[in-house]
Amino acid sequence: MTTELPLLLVLDLVGTFAFGLNGALTAVRAAQLDIVGVVTLGVITAMGGGIIRDVLVGDVPPATFRDWRYLALAVAGGLVAFALSQWLDRLETPINVLDAIGLSVFAVIGASKAVAFGLGVGPAIILGAVTGVGGGTIRDTLVRQVPTVLRSDLYAIPALVAAALTVAAIHLGIYGLPAALVAAAICFAIRMLGVVLKLNAPRPPGDRGLPGER
Amino acid sequence: MTTELPLLLVLDLVGTFAFGLNGALTAVRAAQLDIVGVVTLGVITAMGGGIIRDVLVGDVPPATFRDWRYLALAVAGGLVAFALSQWLDRLETPINVLDAIGLSVFAVIGASKAVAFGLGVGPAIILGAVTGVGGGTIRDTLVRQVPTVLRSDLYAIPALVAAALTVAAIHLGIYGLPAALVAAAICFAIRMLGVVLKLNAPRPPGDRGLPGER
Amino acid sequence: MTTELPLLLVLDLVGTFAFGLNGALTAVRAAQLDIVGVVTLGVITAMGGGIIRDVLVGDVPPATFRDWRYLALAVAGGLVAFALSQWLDRLETPINVLDAIGLSVFAVIGASKAVAFGLGVGPAIILGAVTGVGGGTIRDTLVRQVPTVLRSDLYAIPALVAAALTVAAIHLGIYGLPAALVAAAICFAIRMLGVVLKLNAPRPPGDRGLPGER
Repeated sequence: MTTELPLLLVLDLVGTFAFGLNGALTAVRAAQLDIVGVVTLGVITAMGGGIIRDVLVGDVPPATFRDWRYLALAVAGGLVAFALSQWLDRLETPINVLDAIGLSVFAVIGASKAVAFGLGVGPAIILGAVTGVGGGTIRDTLVRQVPTVLRSDLYAIPALVAAALTVAAIHLGIYGLPAALVAAAICFAIRMLGVVLKLNAPRPPGDRGLPGER
Repeated sequence: MTTELPLLLVLDLVGTFAFGLNGALTAVRAAQLDIVGVVTLGVITAMGGGIIRDVLVGDVPPATFRDWRYLALAVAGGLVAFALSQWLDRLETPINVLDAIGLSVFAVIGASKAVAFGLGVGPAIILGAVTGVGGGTIRDTLVRQVPTVLRSDLYAIPALVAAALTVAAIHLGIYGLPAALVAAAICFAIRMLGVVLKLNAPRPPGDRGLPGER
Repeated sequence: MTTELPLLLVLDLVGTFAFGLNGALTAVRAAQLDIVGVVTLGVITAMGGGIIRDVLVGDVPPATFRDWRYLALAVAGGLVAFALSQWLDRLETPINVLDAIGLSVFAVIGASKAVAFGLGVGPAIILGAVTGVGGGTIRDTLVRQVPTVLRSDLYAIPALVAAALTVAAIHLGIYGLPAALVAAAICFAIRMLGVVLKLNAPRPPGDRGLPGER
């Protein structure tokens, strides 16, 4: 990971900007907020998942607090979103793509960090997924939406897949930039497939066939 | 605590399964969710309170991340709940009983762990109660319910009583499996009494006698 | 800070009582709760921001758990609020003033603690603001309100200003009780100005001129 770290770092920063932009746009769509609220929700979306992960593995202050570029990019994403918010209707696709990028990158990086801090297979996979979905979940809760991760077309599953592939690659000794990119790409593909086909995971048995539900 | 730890551990694992099952069933009742959402909420209910406690006493990664049985039982509870969810109407009583078991066990274990990590009487009692009610509170917030602990018939009070009895027993030097079971049993009894009699703690004065409220 | 610590501690305790009282009153207004719920939300409002800060800087168990006076004052504030809640209509102004005091004091103390734990300028300012607004944000989320910090007339901005002034004073070597009081007073003044004039930060461009919105 050492020599290839720079690209992973770049991806992490790209994911932070993407989530800052996406989180703020989602916030504008869900609630009437002023500029402070919009940027705040962008920053929470971008940094929330990583902060939860760092608190749970015991790496505090969180990494996003120790490198000013994370905060700068998250705020920048939020400000861009604020400026763009009048064209919100035309931004559906970019919002979904940016979100899928952040989700993929964060799930991979989160899982690898969890393994590095000594967590077992199961918890590392979960923490990777939490890194990907955590920020958006806090944002959704604050603006009183049921979190995407609980209701949406294949959102948690791609994050869990990416994290599981990452953990598997590490335990097989083949983790590195290529493996990380493959895991992230698979997550991105599943997520975008879900968006395009509006796929959902199975519903509870009693829930099937109910007309007009949701 | 040493020789008797196995039974406490068993109780802790039983509580985890009970909360995983109960949390997932409650989630099905409150919101239309797919299987990932249902199991996720079961796991959050089962592990959330203990994770908050461990983060606040500084024991990270949380205990539930270091022993794979917790995660396995929480997921198992969520999966059973998913399968059972079509008979949800007939499960009111089991849901309440399982919830009271988890609440009782977690409040006792949470309080004893808080004392072991050096917390004072007041914070240890509160952390014990938080261990019992924390997971369900996160779950309720995510599915947009006002948390049970804030509105329900005697929910926080039995957890506080169990935690207080536990802390008292430790400070009196009589804590052990019998004391833990007594504290948990009293919590269970108060909680079930509240469920059966639909008792509530006192309401604010201005709130009395309002017709048709709630 | 050493010789002047006592007054800062007194302010911190005053802020805790003010937030306990204010948080509980806000909770009564937002939801029908029993005495346990009201006091719980008072305690969460009073201690939540500081607990988030302490977890993120790695100072656990949180400071409010190590000094019993914080918990005692937060509970006392909640109990007074419960008794006062029948005269809630006449308490609009005291609620706002108490809230502004807690916000100001907590933002200053939170920022100075973040710097003391080695955080950089940006994160220290944010953690100071989080200390001020965190407790109320958790409370609002639990009673299903969009948090004040996201929607209200100048709430986050004064907290950020107070935290920024504090961090600046520390880096200029002029931090002490006078600087802390000036920073808190400026925060208090901006917040009260916002309350009186019902000022808001700028809204997204597309949001301007919409009639009847909000």
